[in-house]
Amino acid sequence: MNLSTAARAVRGSAIRDLLALTAPGRAGATPVISLAGGLPAPDLMPRERIAAAAAAVLTDPSAIQYGETAGLASLRTVLVDHETARCGRPVARVVVTTGSQQALDLVARAVLDPGDPVVVEDPAYVGALQAFQAAGATLHPVPLDTGGMRVDLLEHRLRGGLRPRLVHTVPTFHNPRGVTLAAQRRGHLAALAEEFGFLVVEDDPYDLLSFDGASPPPVAAHTDRVVRLGSASKVLAPALRIGWLHGPPELTAAVERLKQCTDLCTSSLTQAVTADLLADAGWFDAHLRHVRAAVAGRARAFTAAVAQHLPGATCSVPAGGMFCWLDLPGVDTTALLPRALDHGVGVVPGSAFAVAEPAPSAIRCCYASHPAPVITEAVRRLARAVSRRAPRALRAGT
Amino acid sequence: MNLSTAARAVRGSAIRDLLALTAPGRAGATPVISLAGGLPAPDLMPRERIAAAAAAVLTDPSAIQYGETAGLASLRTVLVDHETARCGRPVARVVVTTGSQQALDLVARAVLDPGDPVVVEDPAYVGALQAFQAAGATLHPVPLDTGGMRVDLLEHRLRGGLRPRLVHTVPTFHNPRGVTLAAQRRGHLAALAEEFGFLVVEDDPYDLLSFDGASPPPVAAHTDRVVRLGSASKVLAPALRIGWLHGPPELTAAVERLKQCTDLCTSSLTQAVTADLLADAGWFDAHLRHVRAAVAGRARAFTAAVAQHLPGATCSVPAGGMFCWLDLPGVDTTALLPRALDHGVGVVPGSAFAVAEPAPSAIRCCYASHPAPVITEAVRRLARAVSRRAPRALRAGT
Repeated sequence: MNLSTAARAVRGSAIRDLLALTAPGRAGATPVISLAGGLPAPDLMPRERIAAAAAAVLTDPSAIQYGETAGLASLRTVLVDHETARCGRPVARVVVTTGSQQALDLVARAVLDPGDPVVVEDPAYVGALQAFQAAGATLHPVPLDTGGMRVDLLEHRLRGGLRPRLVHTVPTFHNPRGVTLAAQRRGHLAALAEEFGFLVVEDDPYDLLSFDGASPPPVAAHTDRVVRLGSASKVLAPALRIGWLHGPPELTAAVERLKQCTDLCTSSLTQAVTADLLADAGWFDAHLRHVRAAVAGRARAFTAAVAQHLPGATCSVPAGGMFCWLDLPGVDTTALLPRALDHGVGVVPGSAFAVAEPAPSAIRCCYASHPAPVITEAVRRLARAVSRRAPRALRAGT
Repeated sequence: MNLSTAARAVRGSAIRDLLALTAPGRAGATPVISLAGGLPAPDLMPRERIAAAAAAVLTDPSAIQYGETAGLASLRTVLVDHETARCGRPVARVVVTTGSQQALDLVARAVLDPGDPVVVEDPAYVGALQAFQAAGATLHPVPLDTGGMRVDLLEHRLRGGLRPRLVHTVPTFHNPRGVTLAAQRRGHLAALAEEFGFLVVEDDPYDLLSFDGASPPPVAAHTDRVVRLGSASKVLAPALRIGWLHGPPELTAAVERLKQCTDLCTSSLTQAVTADLLADAGWFDAHLRHVRAAVAGRARAFTAAVAQHLPGATCSVPAGGMFCWLDLPGVDTTALLPRALDHGVGVVPGSAFAVAEPAPSAIRCCYASHPAPVITEAVRRLARAVSRRAPRALRAGT
């Protein structure tokens, strides 16, 4: 049958295909330790607190009924307060979405017509690329360095005539690069948005996962030419499917109309549970501190194991979030992948995130999903898989 | 700011705006009994059984993690069995969606390019119109009568040269018309799909709500040129946000790719809860029998009250589902609405569902949301609101 242009434009995510390969219970071979998924650690998600909240909110019939498209009032109140504090200016209206992936999709649909130019980071979050591709956008990649998006290069492109509708960034603990957009660059990006009239899509699901509890003020603190996206998936649990956005009133109104035809409303039940957890400020603060400390320990275990077992690799220095971007000079990581799986470890080749720059020797590793000893063992397995392929310089201990 | 063509094409739903007006706790005036929403009755939704299932599934960490885009294996197994039995042929693959509204949106996006012709019923389910409008479709309405869509008129249009990509129908207990597509017409529609090469979107959320427990075999029993949509919202609870679809393999594969960029996956938690309830066949059968009997009683109370208090009205005869379509000859129901709200009753004017035929004297009433005595009182209030406006013939008891 004939599919639409949009359906043909969207490639499936190689990462989600890979998740099926590394899922527990896959047939044959060594059980795989997966560093491939962007999965919050099961042992750090507050499952019992969620169960208690579910039991409490289910005493109210409204928790199982349809709700307003923009979201549950009690949840929006907490989110408005959080975003107002974070942005340092009054945020009037937050729209709840079914995960922040839905926010990306709705923003793309609300703003973009086929052919519209969109600036993306390179490498980029694949779910953002998919949402922009489905909307028919023309992608203009801008590279990253250790300070996040090269806003200077973006400015050069803008002065050269590029006029994007949207500039997408994952500013904090970037997926997949692990880096954070420097404070000065955030201000610079905001100034460019005002000068050139584009909208920044500030996609910030890892904002609260700083190991030292601090990250720079968001781009939305510098300008209102931003649609800012948040998520409960990485700090509470993905299965709540709770994301949110705020931005220019015309945009949020369009997003609400499109959300009606997309899923009517996000689950009243999971919204009520999320509101219950986020409004319990003492509990939530303690929970965040616990998660940050635990994930920081896993990140240290990861980088220590890399230093020991993969001494030739270069590695981003994690200050928060879930990802480390490893470069294995001379290694074709796409070819490495099946070998790594045979050795019992899953990673994602850099090529899965590449827009224009191919990143053939890079991999993304998620260090957050497992306890430190498991992470260390995963790196050991990875080093063994590499040592059968890599040039001499990279071989561990040889 | 400039919005996309899609954002400008989608009107907000008048019904969802109306829901805000009739929500409990709105300021001032008589508390409104709302017959406006398509809301399952709070007292008939299995809230305690959902709470028990939530407690049980939350003992498993996978219930709060991301899941496969196509849906939780345990839920898909139950749904495959259900759909195979219902369609009388093997259904190989079901994709879980975030409510069946998302299924409509994903099908529209997977199949339609701007300008593509789509046949819709007139009046129609507004959420379907919105999804097709967002995809840029050109709508071709076909009227309904008491036997559902006038398939004979559709055939006439097809023989005249119309070549739709999709034909959308709510075949069972139509929203808003309350009618069911006759068995013979289902076969006829399937034959036309095969002859003219279109795909039927069989949107069937009320299929299980027949008062006598039986509805005709689905269109998907007659042909595989169907994408068939189901929902747990009307038989369990809307807040689960569980819908599903099955259809041609190329289409379901495209739907899965688009779902990745739409919301990654539906909530693992609400999927696990739904699987728990649907797999408990003894409980689910007893629950359905209870809901059908209770809603049938409400429908009888509604039609009896209409016969008594609005003797001039014509009224569809409910055999299942949630809606009754009332025609009030000579009454402008758009003008009636504020007056009805002043009298303490909410309904939806026919114009909200109209595509080409304006339906100026019709209203949609949902009789399922309240116990029978409340439904009776709502009709009494409606009659009072009408009597201040209607021609003499329609005035109750005068």
